Amino acid sequence: MSSATRFLHVDEPLLFKRGGSLPSYTMAYETWGELNADASNAVLILTGLSPSGHAASSPADPSPGWWEPMVGSGKPINADHFYIISLNSLGSCKGSTGPASTNPETGKPYRLDFPELSIEDIATAAHKVIQHLGIEQLCTMVGPSMGGMSALAYLQQNPQGARHFLTISSSPCSEPFSIAIRSLQRELIVSDPAFNGGNYDDDNWPENGMRMARKLGMLSYRSAAEWRTRFERKEQNYFPTELFGMNYEVESYLEAAARRFIYSFDPCSYVYLSRSMDWFDVADGYPDLAAALAAIELRSARVLGVETDILFPVHQQRAIADTLSANNIQTAFTELPSLMGHDAFLADYKLFIPLVEDYFRQIKDEESLP
Amino acid sequence: MSSATRFLHVDEPLLFKRGGSLPSYTMAYETWGELNADASNAVLILTGLSPSGHAASSPADPSPGWWEPMVGSGKPINADHFYIISLNSLGSCKGSTGPASTNPETGKPYRLDFPELSIEDIATAAHKVIQHLGIEQLCTMVGPSMGGMSALAYLQQNPQGARHFLTISSSPCSEPFSIAIRSLQRELIVSDPAFNGGNYDDDNWPENGMRMARKLGMLSYRSAAEWRTRFERKEQNYFPTELFGMNYEVESYLEAAARRFIYSFDPCSYVYLSRSMDWFDVADGYPDLAAALAAIELRSARVLGVETDILFPVHQQRAIADTLSANNIQTAFTELPSLMGHDAFLADYKLFIPLVEDYFRQIKDEESLP
Repeated sequence: MSSATRFLHVDEPLLFKRGGSLPSYTMAYETWGELNADASNAVLILTGLSPSGHAASSPADPSPGWWEPMVGSGKPINADHFYIISLNSLGSCKGSTGPASTNPETGKPYRLDFPELSIEDIATAAHKVIQHLGIEQLCTMVGPSMGGMSALAYLQQNPQGARHFLTISSSPCSEPFSIAIRSLQRELIVSDPAFNGGNYDDDNWPENGMRMARKLGMLSYRSAAEWRTRFERKEQNYFPTELFGMNYEVESYLEAAARRFIYSFDPCSYVYLSRSMDWFDVADGYPDLAAALAAIELRSARVLGVETDILFPVHQQRAIADTLSANNIQTAFTELPSLMGHDAFLADYKLFIPLVEDYFRQIKDEESLP
Repeated sequence: MSSATRFLHVDEPLLFKRGGSLPSYTMAYETWGELNADASNAVLILTGLSPSGHAASSPADPSPGWWEPMVGSGKPINADHFYIISLNSLGSCKGSTGPASTNPETGKPYRLDFPELSIEDIATAAHKVIQHLGIEQLCTMVGPSMGGMSALAYLQQNPQGARHFLTISSSPCSEPFSIAIRSLQRELIVSDPAFNGGNYDDDNWPENGMRMARKLGMLSYRSAAEWRTRFERKEQNYFPTELFGMNYEVESYLEAAARRFIYSFDPCSYVYLSRSMDWFDVADGYPDLAAALAAIELRSARVLGVETDILFPVHQQRAIADTLSANNIQTAFTELPSLMGHDAFLADYKLFIPLVEDYFRQIKDEESLP
């Protein structure tokens, strides 16, 4: 855990959308900058599947965060003007309560006894932190990837929850191709004999399932065009060449990425969060997307997508932008020509920084922040 | 095995490109139509990874073949004019010698003792069948998918091997994204404990590895756009809803496709053929693709690709077409707007039939066949 992590212990039950509840729960988060006197300069970042709340370094924790070039003093999301909050999602394993947390009723980890997690529950728990911090309305909601889904759910639950909205490489619902990729990742993990119905431990870890699920993830996070340029058909000599694999650089790249991941994330948290994305459709129970978002009040929205993204395809981000526009919210949409696929917002900073910087400068001006 | 299958037993060694050899081997194939007096009307179809030689029905075997609408009397590849040969690839498990065949030296299946298989070996064995049939030069070589790789290798080995060439959804080499997909499929199979270093049997079959490899295959054979239209977010009720999966129709579709496949193909054959594709680069040892194909003599070539193909991306087929054109071969290239991805040549017949029919009518005229 980052030494900059703050915790909110909520001593009241959290009722889950699909049923079940937690008697109490903890939310882990970090902040940058200062909340101003009228609590009007708060920016909430909701994350993708795997990040912690440690979006960027700070005096309390100088280690680089997962969005280091984007968050902090003098950076595009500028801590000199804004009070920035980055949350670890409910259901994750980086400080917030999730399947790896201890169930107070049994003294053991929840694992598969954790209630069925929905994106809407992640949003509910995030709102609890914002209330706790004394923020009635966010200045800006920021949601990349899964965080954009959580942000849409948050705004649906709290139509006046934010004045500005930046969503990046996200979607209003999971489509079949993305469901298929995530479903297979989950199958890889839970069918590893070491997963053992959730009863793994440090000595019996579903290593193989986690490794292969991460490789499949990488296939969906990057693009064929990037790898063509980056790896061509170069051979690898980093790992021993194994039977039926590990001949080419692309294979050793995936292997190295997978090995870094295996023990860095709880397998149950992974499958719970993954499934919550498949279940998500912000228009569930509404006639269409416009109706689902109709109540949301925003002064502005900025939607960024990447044309090579196969996991959150850009037409879904265009759908968000078109719908917000049609609902009379001043919305700008940019399709970025990055080769880096879904991960571009974490990798292709030269394209993303100017756009995020520009949007936050515009917000600062509109809000007359010092 | 189809009752129409014919076998060629070759009682001489086959030396493999990467070393190793078979003391003798068998090739399984089927034919349609009659070879004419000067053996000038032969069409050879080299297949993708999994098909047998049973491309279409015939009086000897009326069951539908894997390319039923395309091959036979009155069909686009017309058995009324052409003598059509469809081969099971060397290394496969549908009658031709492969890892599942009995090693005459041990009396047991080769499994991992089978020599390292290259696409070039598949081509060498295919040429042996053509020689045996008394055909000096093919009228037309046809290669979809992996078969197009085998066809390029065949023509490189036999520059006057054919007068006409139809290649569909294939490529001159494997690119990193395709390698990554196939590498992960192989890892899924060989890391299944039941694979057991190739020592599986009917009661201990790497079911789980084969199932998940097939699902990953399906992800690469179809397209997100097709599934969006076909499945939307429809829920499934065909299979019991399992933990962390099987909620949506796309998941039950993949599960059903995977179950059909598990026992229909030998796991060792699968990983051998898969790896041979990754190794393939027709330009290996040449300065570039043009030099690699320079010696090939053809009267015409027809290259078909599909814009939604992520496994054999259409720019690779354009590269084949451009190179053949630059080498002064009369070549036509069509990029088909099918949603069905790599599998379109097996599924989207309304787009493919007119083009294949047209090319074979043109060949028949040029060749003055009756």
